[in-house]
Amino acid sequence: MIIPIHFQPKSSMDYEITIDELPCLRFDKRVAIITNPTIAALHLETLLSKLEVRELHIVEIPDGEAYKNMESVEFILDKLFGFKLDRKSMLIAFGGGVIGDITGFSASLYQRGIDFIQIPTTLLSQVDASVGGKTGVNNKYGKNLIGSFYQPKAVYIDPKFLDTLPLREFVAGIAEMIKVAVTFDAEYFKYLQSVDLHDKEMLKEAIAKAVTIKADVVAKDEKESGIRAVLNYGHTFAHVIENETNYSTYLHGEAVAIGIVMANALACKLGLLDEHEAKQIKSLLKHYGLPTEYSINDVESFYEHFFLDKKSANNAITFVLPQGIGDFKLKADIDSDVIKEVLQDFGEEKSE
Amino acid sequence: MIIPIHFQPKSSMDYEITIDELPCLRFDKRVAIITNPTIAALHLETLLSKLEVRELHIVEIPDGEAYKNMESVEFILDKLFGFKLDRKSMLIAFGGGVIGDITGFSASLYQRGIDFIQIPTTLLSQVDASVGGKTGVNNKYGKNLIGSFYQPKAVYIDPKFLDTLPLREFVAGIAEMIKVAVTFDAEYFKYLQSVDLHDKEMLKEAIAKAVTIKADVVAKDEKESGIRAVLNYGHTFAHVIENETNYSTYLHGEAVAIGIVMANALACKLGLLDEHEAKQIKSLLKHYGLPTEYSINDVESFYEHFFLDKKSANNAITFVLPQGIGDFKLKADIDSDVIKEVLQDFGEEKSE
Repeated sequence: MIIPIHFQPKSSMDYEITIDELPCLRFDKRVAIITNPTIAALHLETLLSKLEVRELHIVEIPDGEAYKNMESVEFILDKLFGFKLDRKSMLIAFGGGVIGDITGFSASLYQRGIDFIQIPTTLLSQVDASVGGKTGVNNKYGKNLIGSFYQPKAVYIDPKFLDTLPLREFVAGIAEMIKVAVTFDAEYFKYLQSVDLHDKEMLKEAIAKAVTIKADVVAKDEKESGIRAVLNYGHTFAHVIENETNYSTYLHGEAVAIGIVMANALACKLGLLDEHEAKQIKSLLKHYGLPTEYSINDVESFYEHFFLDKKSANNAITFVLPQGIGDFKLKADIDSDVIKEVLQDFGEEKSE
Repeated sequence: MIIPIHFQPKSSMDYEITIDELPCLRFDKRVAIITNPTIAALHLETLLSKLEVRELHIVEIPDGEAYKNMESVEFILDKLFGFKLDRKSMLIAFGGGVIGDITGFSASLYQRGIDFIQIPTTLLSQVDASVGGKTGVNNKYGKNLIGSFYQPKAVYIDPKFLDTLPLREFVAGIAEMIKVAVTFDAEYFKYLQSVDLHDKEMLKEAIAKAVTIKADVVAKDEKESGIRAVLNYGHTFAHVIENETNYSTYLHGEAVAIGIVMANALACKLGLLDEHEAKQIKSLLKHYGLPTEYSINDVESFYEHFFLDKKSANNAITFVLPQGIGDFKLKADIDSDVIKEVLQDFGEEKSE
């Protein structure tokens, strides 16, 4: 006897991303803001002046990737039970990527899921982490290995919050904008070449475009089974670099910038990208002060690291490579000798 | 600037529930069975004889509701990372409701979600917990307060596993069958009155019908925002009874049986159910040896307990009441005096 279970499609996952000055927000419910002391000191007052809710709570967790773990999630959940939040209550993620990922994850777990909205305060989280519904934490086995796919009810991106962002972190966010431009949108790449992202109005336009591209990708592929993997362009290399340098030398966006250069070298070797295009991409990265050089000490060890990534299914690695500027190709069958030749080029001589 | 995010509906949540002898199952992937020592000793051999997989792992957690907590989930996740399960790997929940809830929850968290299937081995989990995708754990604030909605890829219900189930647990499962009959299906109620559930073939039919009714309800309302709440018939009272007796006197299904009798008394008082119908329901519960009496010591305290349930949104309590046999009514606006009068009847004199 077989009973088929069919779920009616829900449309309730749809939401809007507003890119503008933070509007006044009113919620007739219990609300908890999750933030960190750095952001709270700089911007909590602004947020509170825009917020009108039935009952407000604030939870702070320490600033930094080191606190993106289950302990922080359990700390938050414990607070929420203490506040007696119910199923109609709501969380507000107020901070960068770490706060966004932890808050979304906590919201997905509390009483099997309550609403949350995101107010990202770093460029990286505005253009990347705030779109796509990836939530989660790190553990001793790696980054983002425990989590869920859980969409916010709304995202408010106010570039004004970036005024206090350290330059280095600001620039790290630009790497992710260049990433989506190279793989998805030649016109956006030209736009990025032509504008000054330190200009407020141009920045706002550029954020909107990056968000639109990413939103389009994740809408087609919520759970990363297909096209969404293209957003990992540069990341396969970046993860090894971050790991080799103990996550302490480079910000994630900086490692991605180097990863993009490496992926491009592989794409050139395979005839997907020409040297001129690779140079254009590298120039744009350098223009904003992003690192583009990395000296590989041990090619074999670097190569082996690809396979240590717990996410690689059945030991096959798929590389996301640009096909010219504005398009991509997923390559799963690259000969190991070809890959190692490319890595060798980063070992012997630092390119340019 | 507003960017709308629209997710295309997925149909991948659909799955099948097979009610029959466990078929041979083949999976060309890494698989981990999550079970407990009791079930492993009785039935693991049977399961292994039906299973053909690329790589098999077994994780045991201690038997019992006391182990339905985050510690068990973290223990399981740690094992899965140790086995190097990837995103294409799969879990098998092999046991009762606790194993099902914990396994589904672990599957939903591991690398943001991997597949799992359910092979429930108790009557309660076969007719109730295996349908609906509710996963989660208890914490010090209450039951099932941390979790997710996450659907299995398949459910295999083999009544043969019930041969070793203690009678008391078997009977507790019958309470949930009576529950769905009273609120959704008069014909099924008559069927339950007419059959002997200790007979294998009749039991199989009765399980299939209960599953069909529940599947129909959850398919319409995956995340319990509407009709699914009707499945809580009897539970509002049962939760207080379980709490007052420290979860040690009654099995959940037994508390639900008493809760059904109390809900019926309230329904009679409000003219939704007549005394004859209430008697029929009570008789059926008693026929299988389910408890139907409970002596309320302190009516005020019992009443206050309704409001301690962390799930009650904004302090309003919605009672699920039968409207005759085979239909239901949700009542949120019942006068507290009326409720207390009904509770009083369970206090002064033990009815019948």
